[in-house]
Amino acid sequence: MKQLTIIKIGGNVIDNSENLHQFLLDFTALPGDKILVHGGGKIATELGESLGIEAKMVEGRRITDIETLRIVTMVYAGLINKNMVAQLQAKGSNAIGLTGADGNIIKAKKRPVKEIDYGLVGDLDENSVSATTLDSLLTAGLVPVLCAITHDGDTQLLNTNADTIASSVAVAMSSLYETRLVYCFEKKGVLKDVNDDGSVVKEIKADEFEGLKADGTVQGGMIPKLHNAFEAIKKGVSAVYIGKADELAELAAETFGTKMLK
Amino acid sequence: MKQLTIIKIGGNVIDNSENLHQFLLDFTALPGDKILVHGGGKIATELGESLGIEAKMVEGRRITDIETLRIVTMVYAGLINKNMVAQLQAKGSNAIGLTGADGNIIKAKKRPVKEIDYGLVGDLDENSVSATTLDSLLTAGLVPVLCAITHDGDTQLLNTNADTIASSVAVAMSSLYETRLVYCFEKKGVLKDVNDDGSVVKEIKADEFEGLKADGTVQGGMIPKLHNAFEAIKKGVSAVYIGKADELAELAAETFGTKMLK
Repeated sequence: MKQLTIIKIGGNVIDNSENLHQFLLDFTALPGDKILVHGGGKIATELGESLGIEAKMVEGRRITDIETLRIVTMVYAGLINKNMVAQLQAKGSNAIGLTGADGNIIKAKKRPVKEIDYGLVGDLDENSVSATTLDSLLTAGLVPVLCAITHDGDTQLLNTNADTIASSVAVAMSSLYETRLVYCFEKKGVLKDVNDDGSVVKEIKADEFEGLKADGTVQGGMIPKLHNAFEAIKKGVSAVYIGKADELAELAAETFGTKMLK
Repeated sequence: MKQLTIIKIGGNVIDNSENLHQFLLDFTALPGDKILVHGGGKIATELGESLGIEAKMVEGRRITDIETLRIVTMVYAGLINKNMVAQLQAKGSNAIGLTGADGNIIKAKKRPVKEIDYGLVGDLDENSVSATTLDSLLTAGLVPVLCAITHDGDTQLLNTNADTIASSVAVAMSSLYETRLVYCFEKKGVLKDVNDDGSVVKEIKADEFEGLKADGTVQGGMIPKLHNAFEAIKKGVSAVYIGKADELAELAAETFGTKMLK
């Protein structure tokens, strides 16, 4: 079975041009088929401020109204995505930048209004990702670079969580590829001691997760991250890695960050 | 030989949502392989004004400085391109929105500085367009939607004339397809009498062009348009049409606007 690596990066890589340059070099050097998924970063917030459009918050959650969607479409799908593609091309990756609307690669459903109306936000389900279209791009030698915008198939673009896009793409592609999913974040991985970067837990098996929660090794914001990782593994992804973008080169030796597996 | 139609639209279609909706319906209904090329429109100018960035003009020509490039990348590649893709998807076209950087489809050269420094503007030559990559997208059942942004292969995005993109793509694709090129503009075609929309010249052969210039049928801004059309035909394009977007449906019967041929 062909191998595929899906890598998700966020603002801590995108907002720093040196970090981004080094990351894109390491990404290009990584062998095999690859898909890059990126979130937003400070640029969208800054553009909104320049245009006098305030971030709308309800009960501490960000709301995507029409104006916000216009901004994230311009910044994520235009400015960030296309500059990243141009940089990858210069480094030797045949990148192609896409939203979920392109090739109908990711069709989302607008989040239903319950206690909070999140606005133009897309949720994904097991039928959202078109593995066939992504496969035909990979087969043509292209490297898809996906931003955090999808569509509903009925003309509406939707703002969509990049972590969710990465895991949904990884799960869908695992029908055609042996798939690994890599989340780059601000820490070196799951740390035994949060104040000691050297205390990375190198590997967590699914049946060890509950124990690590119980003894406090995995806590706070790491719990949902790891929960989602093991859900992806349950649905067919071979391994999920979580670690720091500037150590991506270690992925080739499988020593990158914390590896989660079955 | 497979047939391919390349259609270019500009601001007069993009800036009016009803015109755009009808055009995209007609575009979707058109049989065979297709590529859509779009320019900008008023939105980029309006965003620039909202951000307090004035259009830079030198001797009446617009200059693409870094700020302007940021804006057109956001508006052309993000806002306009992705909304158009989402609309085409809803209408049944499997659209994929691209800049020239994506898949290295169009590699341009920054325009050399002579009397005027146009800034970050890309010029195309006979090696700019990757027909192979466009062909693999078409073969995968996709409908490329190209905006007026290219790259130089060395990380720099470049603002590029959409008419030139359309003709360069048409010429490059004519090695693989029987290619026709369609320019939508504000008139119904070449008019014998500029005040009479009913006076469309239905067909112009290459050897008739000089005569029509001499007798004044083709004049002013139409001269370079037709010159470029016949250049594309000389380089392998089967036919070039020029006409009004709202009559696109007539293309199937080859009665659309003015047809130029060998």
